[in-house]
Amino acid sequence: MRAEIVAVGTELLLGQIANTNAAWISDRLAEIGVDVLRHQVVGDNADRIEEAIATAVARSDVVVVMGGLGPTQDDITRPALARVAGAELVRRPEIERELRERFRVRGREMPESNLAQADVPDGARYIAPRRGTAPGLILDVGSTRVYALPGVPAEMREMAEGAVLPELAERGGPAALVSRTLRCYGLAESRIAELLDDLFRGSSNPTVAYLAGGGEVHVRLTAKADIRSEAEAMLEPFEHAVRRELGDHVYGIDDETLERVVGRLLTDRGMTLACAESLTGGGLGERITAVPGASAYFLGSAVTYSLASKRSILGVSEVTLEWPGPVSPECAAEMAAGARRAFGADVAVSLTGVAGPDAHGGAEAGQVWIGLDAEDRSHQHAFRWPFDRDLVRRFSELAALDLVRRHLLGMPLPD
Amino acid sequence: MRAEIVAVGTELLLGQIANTNAAWISDRLAEIGVDVLRHQVVGDNADRIEEAIATAVARSDVVVVMGGLGPTQDDITRPALARVAGAELVRRPEIERELRERFRVRGREMPESNLAQADVPDGARYIAPRRGTAPGLILDVGSTRVYALPGVPAEMREMAEGAVLPELAERGGPAALVSRTLRCYGLAESRIAELLDDLFRGSSNPTVAYLAGGGEVHVRLTAKADIRSEAEAMLEPFEHAVRRELGDHVYGIDDETLERVVGRLLTDRGMTLACAESLTGGGLGERITAVPGASAYFLGSAVTYSLASKRSILGVSEVTLEWPGPVSPECAAEMAAGARRAFGADVAVSLTGVAGPDAHGGAEAGQVWIGLDAEDRSHQHAFRWPFDRDLVRRFSELAALDLVRRHLLGMPLPD
Repeated sequence: MRAEIVAVGTELLLGQIANTNAAWISDRLAEIGVDVLRHQVVGDNADRIEEAIATAVARSDVVVVMGGLGPTQDDITRPALARVAGAELVRRPEIERELRERFRVRGREMPESNLAQADVPDGARYIAPRRGTAPGLILDVGSTRVYALPGVPAEMREMAEGAVLPELAERGGPAALVSRTLRCYGLAESRIAELLDDLFRGSSNPTVAYLAGGGEVHVRLTAKADIRSEAEAMLEPFEHAVRRELGDHVYGIDDETLERVVGRLLTDRGMTLACAESLTGGGLGERITAVPGASAYFLGSAVTYSLASKRSILGVSEVTLEWPGPVSPECAAEMAAGARRAFGADVAVSLTGVAGPDAHGGAEAGQVWIGLDAEDRSHQHAFRWPFDRDLVRRFSELAALDLVRRHLLGMPLPD
Repeated sequence: MRAEIVAVGTELLLGQIANTNAAWISDRLAEIGVDVLRHQVVGDNADRIEEAIATAVARSDVVVVMGGLGPTQDDITRPALARVAGAELVRRPEIERELRERFRVRGREMPESNLAQADVPDGARYIAPRRGTAPGLILDVGSTRVYALPGVPAEMREMAEGAVLPELAERGGPAALVSRTLRCYGLAESRIAELLDDLFRGSSNPTVAYLAGGGEVHVRLTAKADIRSEAEAMLEPFEHAVRRELGDHVYGIDDETLERVVGRLLTDRGMTLACAESLTGGGLGERITAVPGASAYFLGSAVTYSLASKRSILGVSEVTLEWPGPVSPECAAEMAAGARRAFGADVAVSLTGVAGPDAHGGAEAGQVWIGLDAEDRSHQHAFRWPFDRDLVRRFSELAALDLVRRHLLGMPLPD
């Protein structure tokens, strides 16, 4: 099945937002085996919307139009779509009732312009909205199935997941596409590709894709078969082989972030964690507490940006702060030990360094020391990141989380 | 000038990345008065690349093609462009020399396939790369100017800023487009639009645009005139009028974030800031320290996720933690006072609440107390956010930053 995405919205052409809707639905369509061959973006202009949809219809089996379904005067996808289909717009009384009811329960008066959302091209089906007020549309133009969805991401996703993707998955026949993502930390993408080269050379099913970003590499394996269990069975030996090659660099699967893995390991062991942060300014704690329920194992973080607070809150010695200074293994060790003591935690991890852009405290930008302190262990190691301020901070957070993971799993720690 | 963007890359059609390149260059083109009317995205497929470029050329004055210029076998924009132009690819010896030299200084052998990057359509100019190895291309097809740039964002931006945008700005004649963004906190987008309705009704120059997101609203004013100083003069009375209507809700201009404004105010006053965070887990400190040089005024944050650490590090009383509990004005007040003391800061701000999804510590999800402590001031107020965990945390951080801003400016604080 050949698909095309048409996004409508002047804000996209002005560069005010990126077309994340197209990326999202393309990813989901790929998952069910639909080939997306083109994206188009046009503004809130009747002629260009109509032209874009007509062009897409002429060359695709499926067209997903997103945006321009709302109630205001710049929402004109609905009539453009009717013109492409050569159909009249017909007001549907049940949608009108629903729209009026929504305003009534909120005690607000409905502008009559809102009723345009009750207009549906003759012969089309509609998708009732749960979050927003704009119904989606489903219609066939010749042999092409056209879906029109709202541009608000949450509303678009709701209708895509509720109606579009299930319908297309079924239409695509009994084929099942199953993906598994192995999340890796500590190996470069090129090194991973090298290690797995033999394994996937010449394999067109399952396939492998490497997605690098934010300091991690994700290895996505995808298998296609007639039924789901068969595709899963095909994946299994490949997953084993990948794990054998990449070893303990594989930290989690699918949506499991490093902070989630650390949370699970702490929960399993009934242990608690605390942090001492300098260069990351709280970013490590922020990441750990992004996981709901983190209060079961995370006690807190001492963000000691000043020398005085490193001393008063974490008990780092005057001597260390003077020489070798705050960016040193000695300071990282004392910070971690101090955080473990101050919070009464089982494990503590510390980060001290220079995010940049300028050198600071006698160290170059990108120089970072990481420390770990536990009952039976005190460990420090250094990184020198060749990145900008933001990436130095993000990569340091990941390195700290991976250090905790390795400690909890009893793995060797990096030098 | 009517422009169109053609992005090339299968990773875009698979949804692995969003088309941020198109957003970036569209924003920059709008700034110099070039109207972007369409975006197209195609994969690494020779026919579809050629078709997309040819279609764009036929209907646009300017076409910017991005991606597919690299050295590997899926980089095929160069020959596709030559076919559209009806020109032969000619190997340029000076590019070849430069490519060989780059590999030589790195002590690596150059794969011969790399030489494809030295091929330029006959009659075209090229843009020498500083970061990458792929030269950009500039050529005219009929009356349409076509630019081809690499897909790697940093390489694309370098060439756009160094060659494409200056050339187009000049070609566009003497028109100058000047924008000014007023950043607002504390008013809903609909309320702002209502307040400014009279001001901009019927005004097509300057124009106003509202961009809401992340808890803020940005009001962007844009004026067009023959020369820059004239456009700036046209903006001035409108900016004054907007500021008059929105008052102290306007916190900054253009790229000035709330944390930057707070940093500037603290620096101007020679004052220091500390935080006490619970529900945000360090996100407030992370945001404050995203500003380079924050160590001049930011001392640190006590991320006290556990009750025990609220007591031991911040000195919150046993009594308060028992009743009314950690999500209360009393606890917010003691946390802020404790942070000011522990860090020796002039001003401290505290956040305690429930990010959700579940209720916690006797309070509902979304319930947040914010506290401020200074030498002559102790203030607390509450929010009840109807959002998910992530947004509750983000909105709480902004509210805390705005509270500090208001305090430093001697403004009334919210109830």
